[in-house]
Amino acid sequence: MNREIPVADLLSQAAEGQERAIAILISEIEGGKARAVVDCLVGRPPNAQVIGLTGPPGAGKSTLAGRLASSLLAIGSKVGVVAVDPSSPFSGGALLGDRVRMDWPDQARPFMRSMATRGSTGGLAGATEDTVALLSWLGFTHVIVETVGAGQNDLAIAGIADTVVVVSVPGLGDSVQTEKAGMYEIADLHVVNKSDRPEAGQLAAELRHVTEPRDDWEVPVLLTNALDGSGVEELRDQIERHRAHLLEAGRFEGRRQERARSRLIAAAAARAESATRARLSEVGGLSEIAEQVVEGTLSVYQALDLVLAGDSDDSERDAWLDRGLP
Amino acid sequence: MNREIPVADLLSQAAEGQERAIAILISEIEGGKARAVVDCLVGRPPNAQVIGLTGPPGAGKSTLAGRLASSLLAIGSKVGVVAVDPSSPFSGGALLGDRVRMDWPDQARPFMRSMATRGSTGGLAGATEDTVALLSWLGFTHVIVETVGAGQNDLAIAGIADTVVVVSVPGLGDSVQTEKAGMYEIADLHVVNKSDRPEAGQLAAELRHVTEPRDDWEVPVLLTNALDGSGVEELRDQIERHRAHLLEAGRFEGRRQERARSRLIAAAAARAESATRARLSEVGGLSEIAEQVVEGTLSVYQALDLVLAGDSDDSERDAWLDRGLP
Repeated sequence: MNREIPVADLLSQAAEGQERAIAILISEIEGGKARAVVDCLVGRPPNAQVIGLTGPPGAGKSTLAGRLASSLLAIGSKVGVVAVDPSSPFSGGALLGDRVRMDWPDQARPFMRSMATRGSTGGLAGATEDTVALLSWLGFTHVIVETVGAGQNDLAIAGIADTVVVVSVPGLGDSVQTEKAGMYEIADLHVVNKSDRPEAGQLAAELRHVTEPRDDWEVPVLLTNALDGSGVEELRDQIERHRAHLLEAGRFEGRRQERARSRLIAAAAARAESATRARLSEVGGLSEIAEQVVEGTLSVYQALDLVLAGDSDDSERDAWLDRGLP
Repeated sequence: MNREIPVADLLSQAAEGQERAIAILISEIEGGKARAVVDCLVGRPPNAQVIGLTGPPGAGKSTLAGRLASSLLAIGSKVGVVAVDPSSPFSGGALLGDRVRMDWPDQARPFMRSMATRGSTGGLAGATEDTVALLSWLGFTHVIVETVGAGQNDLAIAGIADTVVVVSVPGLGDSVQTEKAGMYEIADLHVVNKSDRPEAGQLAAELRHVTEPRDDWEVPVLLTNALDGSGVEELRDQIERHRAHLLEAGRFEGRRQERARSRLIAAAAARAESATRARLSEVGGLSEIAEQVVEGTLSVYQALDLVLAGDSDDSERDAWLDRGLP
């Protein structure tokens, strides 16, 4: 779709605020053409603050993301919301249903997008980070990345976000979910949503009890009610305060450096994945290798050596390694 | 720890049933020495049936895994249980708490192990699959892999297990979690646990309504109560029936082939990851490259080309690619 429009033209249209052009560019990123887009995004420092919003299903993250976006828009920010949904490994499509319907201030609206992670290595760390880079290059000041679920994805957010907001909700076995997923260690801010529930105060007290300062930052525990918006302005202010803290403490740059290193590692993995996938589907003899793994006559590592070695022509080997570029 | 004992000796001890030797071998797999172990596991077809047990937190999966193990032991099976917990990206340790305490039949016990996934690419598809290969080589007939959470991990189980059991529980917003995570498509068996809850029958009916046959297999929806063990024998029988179905339909081999291919792709990604990580930490000039990504003067893909190119000496490049072997 719209493959005819050059990336440079799409970027010009996107820079003028045409949401459709942004949407097409993100589809290109998701569809394996990330490099064509991302290589054009140089020459501007990526200044957008990336806010990770994570927590268990049913915590009200999508509604809270919408409220937070609204609150940031009200003070003149340019806001993007990227929702990373776990998706089927078979159908490949992101499920909708987390869309937020609300009244935006003064006709300002955030740019909103659901991403399909497709279960691949590149998943969250790949397409999402490339989308964040795109929005940042386009002058967005804040990008909210919402991750659904309570697994690896939610911890990966720590490698993407400047500020990680962990959302809890009373009545889901209290703090057990959070504890299990190692969320305490990645939270820059804790939010107890659905603050109208009777157990909200108790959960907040528990979180305050177990939360420890991170790099001279006292992790705040806030109460919000995304449905009526209460507590959201304080959340916004604390997010701004966290950015200021990172900048003052000289840690903003360090986090970004760490992020760039993680991104490079993830990009290398994604490249190797797609190269190996291509190699397995191209070369006839390789199904024999998989067969030998099934039969137990080759270990997976021995098989991988054979797959990667191919014929002993090094230039060919280099060629397929390079072909794996997204 | 115990690095002095050669892998071959550990394997002999493990084959004699010494659980401590198995535990050390799995620690070696987790600790980046997987290849040394797995390359020894050739010559025997991996015959263990791999049962994936997945579902949202709080569904009672660990207790059910224990009950199922007990039920399999009672008919003479040799059973391993591998629990894949989401773990902190910082501390790297698996949290305990999912251990099952129960009475085992006739002094037979399953081998039980919690794995830390460490948020790496190799995570579930790597260390867990290598551990399954180890247990299978050691003559275990059934390996139950329990995954916690409701994210990517749970879908990855479809790439590891011969039989995927999706556990639901009434009162967690009913079937919503299952739907979100694409679980319908990976389930070979549905279990509604905590069947004593009043909404259990309703949830089972909903699941029966939405479940469709997979490859001529009518996906059963079972009711269990892991606390008192009711329904567990039927679950065991249906798992056995599913294996027979796969074998009869000629699909067992196909699934295993597909699994071997996925495993090769994941191993290639893990190798590239660790190679890139090593390269980033070794070569001085590379922090400059990460810096340029942070400043927006290089895209991540351009930076990766530079990292992988190194100096233009191809033999060195090949050397570090090979060094990345787990």
